[in-house]
Amino acid sequence: MKIVAVLYPGGERATNNPDLLGCAENALGLKDFLEKSGHELVVLTDQEYELDKHLPTADVVITTPFWPAYITKERLTKAQKLRLILTAGVGSDHIDLASAAAHDITVAEITGSNVVSVAEQVVMHILALVRNYIPAYKQVLDGKWDIAEIAANAHDLEGKTVGVIGTGRIGQRVCTRLKGFDINLLYYNNFRLSTVEEFVLGIRYTPLEELIEKSDIITINTPLTPETDGMFNRDLLFRMKKGAYLVNTARGKIIDTKALVEALEKGHLAGYAGDVWFPEPAPRNHPWRNMPNHGMVHHYSGTTLEAQKRYADGIKNCLVKFLNGHAIERDYLIVDNGKVVSPSYSYAFKK
Amino acid sequence: MKIVAVLYPGGERATNNPDLLGCAENALGLKDFLEKSGHELVVLTDQEYELDKHLPTADVVITTPFWPAYITKERLTKAQKLRLILTAGVGSDHIDLASAAAHDITVAEITGSNVVSVAEQVVMHILALVRNYIPAYKQVLDGKWDIAEIAANAHDLEGKTVGVIGTGRIGQRVCTRLKGFDINLLYYNNFRLSTVEEFVLGIRYTPLEELIEKSDIITINTPLTPETDGMFNRDLLFRMKKGAYLVNTARGKIIDTKALVEALEKGHLAGYAGDVWFPEPAPRNHPWRNMPNHGMVHHYSGTTLEAQKRYADGIKNCLVKFLNGHAIERDYLIVDNGKVVSPSYSYAFKK
Repeated sequence: MKIVAVLYPGGERATNNPDLLGCAENALGLKDFLEKSGHELVVLTDQEYELDKHLPTADVVITTPFWPAYITKERLTKAQKLRLILTAGVGSDHIDLASAAAHDITVAEITGSNVVSVAEQVVMHILALVRNYIPAYKQVLDGKWDIAEIAANAHDLEGKTVGVIGTGRIGQRVCTRLKGFDINLLYYNNFRLSTVEEFVLGIRYTPLEELIEKSDIITINTPLTPETDGMFNRDLLFRMKKGAYLVNTARGKIIDTKALVEALEKGHLAGYAGDVWFPEPAPRNHPWRNMPNHGMVHHYSGTTLEAQKRYADGIKNCLVKFLNGHAIERDYLIVDNGKVVSPSYSYAFKK
Repeated sequence: MKIVAVLYPGGERATNNPDLLGCAENALGLKDFLEKSGHELVVLTDQEYELDKHLPTADVVITTPFWPAYITKERLTKAQKLRLILTAGVGSDHIDLASAAAHDITVAEITGSNVVSVAEQVVMHILALVRNYIPAYKQVLDGKWDIAEIAANAHDLEGKTVGVIGTGRIGQRVCTRLKGFDINLLYYNNFRLSTVEEFVLGIRYTPLEELIEKSDIITINTPLTPETDGMFNRDLLFRMKKGAYLVNTARGKIIDTKALVEALEKGHLAGYAGDVWFPEPAPRNHPWRNMPNHGMVHHYSGTTLEAQKRYADGIKNCLVKFLNGHAIERDYLIVDNGKVVSPSYSYAFKK
């Protein structure tokens, strides 16, 4: 079998650090295992030209959300031999799932591998925005000690209303971590959680529009689906409270790029942070790089060293099963037997 | 009575923002109240020359930890009329407490006013260090998308050992907030907490040296006393785990300035953050401003808008009681009747 993996370039850090499993050089620790089993592993960093060269002869393609190879309908029609697409991480929206289903290609991701990593990042971004961290850090570098400049926009998280949109594996972990901060936690989800889940997480179900209008801070934790694509349009952004904060570690395309810049420039939102963009890698002139009051990072929250170990293990588990003709873990399956089977992608999020 | 307050300059932000109560211009909201009661309020931003000019005729002095006026032994001998020193905030180490006691001057601070604010800041700093936030943020501004550079040093907090030094009002609130992160929480304190307190906080008592050697992350939450002054000397810093992180929102003087720079430059510590320095305001050439892998801010964690409201209310409460000849809340008292009465300052922290 020919396995093609598209991974981020590690450079010198790859040789220094064998734990950096997710980069092209370390190739998820698959090299020895695949070569000993007589399979061919091709590792690329180029998501366009090189990928297109290898796609027609690939049996398996491995991609990641952090350095996405966009597996479009056009690409899938050229991938005549392709049987399996694996996502090293969580979130397979860079793959045309309907088209993969039509071609009877299986799609799987390593469900749960980095949900803790992303949930921690969400709490970090919320605290950093509310407490006005980045401008205060910049003062240190600039040799300043201007308390008023920072304190005038620094708040406690305590007592605030936080709206959690999407309470799947990540959103729920955001709630368990935020619970200790004495806040008012609202949530919206494509289905209401059980009474016990709501009690344990300390959250209250709130219709989307009401959550948008009531929250001081909103965190987005949904997959990118046709329903969430562009969901935070100009209207929704400007229906948020004046001075509210928005954190998005889900997918960049959930938010209207230009409308977000406008909401920040006009001071309607007090701050924005997250690690997801569209497209990725974000070009040097992406407008979010230089909009006011942002605390953004590139897409890495789900690829800490611990997360890389977990998703590398998961990818190996999938390959071993697939190469030996066994079924892949049901929890990992996104598209199977010609159908989108994951509830994250098959249930409409926004009615 | 003549009340002298030394507060940080607010500038144009003061007029724009009446909630910025802690700055000199807004003077803790005391102006009207004191003038109507026939008292004189003098508000300074200069902690040296102007303070020395007004001290001999002051009955009450109000200072803050964020813009400290150092009330030394020399100054206290010149303050012939001084009866009361109030700290707008928490931490009265900028006052020579023994000397204040000898002169029978009462010292009080607004206990509890900003303990939540500081605890939130601690969690933020821990997450930002462990998850490698600042370098990732800088990449966005620099137009980069280098996953490997960030991921090679990005970790999950989950599963790590966090050592909490000092479990008073702030340290305990750090624990209640960290508890949801699935970590191993150790603590050292000048006295062991009760069984129930340990259970609720999810923490294990650990002798200081053992805590230092076992922790991946250490957070300092003690007052500055003769025992904690310089406690993190070169020896203790280099006894920490290689690659560990240190967060200090207590007081800058608890750590040896040069030894910390050395520990970071040699890569013994992976990162340092916090908002306390010595002296304050930190001079432009303070070595901590430019040491490697720091995520520092100036001293503001306890002066969010919410905290300013709480300590301004507390200061007014103290003044009303004092000016009417009533006793100040016992919880606020640091020095009273010629003795240091607060357990934070009267019990030796490190045996």
